[in-house]
Amino acid sequence: MSLRIIHAATGVPAVSAADRGFAYGDGLFETLRLHAGAPVRWDAHWARLRRGAEALAIPLAAEDEGKARMAAQAACGGVQRAVLKLVLTRGEGGRGYAPPPDARPTLVIGIHDLPARAPADLAVRWCRTRLAIQPRLAGIKHLNRLEQVLARAEWDDDSAYEGLMLDTGERVVSAIAANLFVRLKGRWITPPVDRCGVAGTMRAWCLQALPAVEDELSKPEVEAAEALFLCNAVRGILPVHRLGTRRWPTDAAIAELRRRLALAEPAFATE
Amino acid sequence: MSLRIIHAATGVPAVSAADRGFAYGDGLFETLRLHAGAPVRWDAHWARLRRGAEALAIPLAAEDEGKARMAAQAACGGVQRAVLKLVLTRGEGGRGYAPPPDARPTLVIGIHDLPARAPADLAVRWCRTRLAIQPRLAGIKHLNRLEQVLARAEWDDDSAYEGLMLDTGERVVSAIAANLFVRLKGRWITPPVDRCGVAGTMRAWCLQALPAVEDELSKPEVEAAEALFLCNAVRGILPVHRLGTRRWPTDAAIAELRRRLALAEPAFATE
Repeated sequence: MSLRIIHAATGVPAVSAADRGFAYGDGLFETLRLHAGAPVRWDAHWARLRRGAEALAIPLAAEDEGKARMAAQAACGGVQRAVLKLVLTRGEGGRGYAPPPDARPTLVIGIHDLPARAPADLAVRWCRTRLAIQPRLAGIKHLNRLEQVLARAEWDDDSAYEGLMLDTGERVVSAIAANLFVRLKGRWITPPVDRCGVAGTMRAWCLQALPAVEDELSKPEVEAAEALFLCNAVRGILPVHRLGTRRWPTDAAIAELRRRLALAEPAFATE
Repeated sequence: MSLRIIHAATGVPAVSAADRGFAYGDGLFETLRLHAGAPVRWDAHWARLRRGAEALAIPLAAEDEGKARMAAQAACGGVQRAVLKLVLTRGEGGRGYAPPPDARPTLVIGIHDLPARAPADLAVRWCRTRLAIQPRLAGIKHLNRLEQVLARAEWDDDSAYEGLMLDTGERVVSAIAANLFVRLKGRWITPPVDRCGVAGTMRAWCLQALPAVEDELSKPEVEAAEALFLCNAVRGILPVHRLGTRRWPTDAAIAELRRRLALAEPAFATE
């Protein structure tokens, strides 16, 4: 059964309360930049969505990418700078966890305003909420996001821009809505995402561009790092300057990486 | 802000794609029996919904229960036997995990057919999917249910009626959509639900009625048990007769417990 695509040029689309995305968080999402009327790095996002769909056994037909890309392109028409959000669910079903064999997946396409510019003196904090270890769901960008909601609810003032999260084994994983890179003894490191966390598309770009390695990170290691930055597909690369009492000055390597990203993707030009 | 209630006497209600239940699974649900035009054990279900709302900091006003009960009662009118499903979400919000301070919670009320009668010779199987350990979400009936979806997708024939789940620490927790009780050396036991799992309303009834104790259970202990049963608010008490090569005959204590439940709640009369 082919994809059901829901989008609204203006206004917010409605979905059925029988959609399994609503009932169980049975689906996936992608958020990407929309720049000069076109989605930025569509291929990387669709590839991750497809990997997630395989992990959840949500059937995507060969022609679905073309249909989704055309619908997204149509929704983007004329918009200069925005965020494009895709939500793919297993589609509608009755009550009960068993995936309906004849479910027709739903794709919801939405356009959102760009977030406010990040502060130049960006601060992060440690979250108390831990990420549970669940290899079956690790890496993919699924819709079960209560841990992120609880973590982001830990503060409601401007004291921190993002929160850093550990897993239940006390290993550092990522920020709430961004991946994390740190430099330790001259070596760029980002934590693995095979137990929990999301394999960000910008994380993949940075891993290759720096280059960096995947390795375990503890809280003291992050606090002792020579430099750190966050990254995601909406905000690009964000240098971190404060964590508790620790301060980091502007780092030349991060500045250079941001210039390279802006050259590769004009959406991320900071000036 | 008071509760927004969505229900449809016929047909499936629509929700906004901006509802955080759809975006993040940011909400809770309850499924209960509807019998002779009225919800069964409403108070127990509303109390659990309220505990879940506290855990997720979804604001419920004092008058919301009355409003919800009246709306549910109206939806139930004239229906003899069915399942009533409530979904409570944080309501609509923009992009981003931070709970909107002015969000108005949404309650969706739906009426579903009763499931088919369980087989008399009920079989269960072990699931490969493990439940992640997340004390912040344990016990409550939240909308992040991908683990249950993955577990229930492990088989699609009639070889088993339900699956038994272990946590990532290899402790037995429950069935996919029911709690589990086992008798070991004459003592009724059900696993704790403070690391993962759901604190079922029928589990609470059985804990008191048997009485039973909460204790850790291993896979070999379940396989060696003298008797076992599943329970939930939709199906009541279901004796288990088969697990792999193990067989259990009809158990007098389970039969007696079912009779007591049917006396207390006629919805669960099996004949």
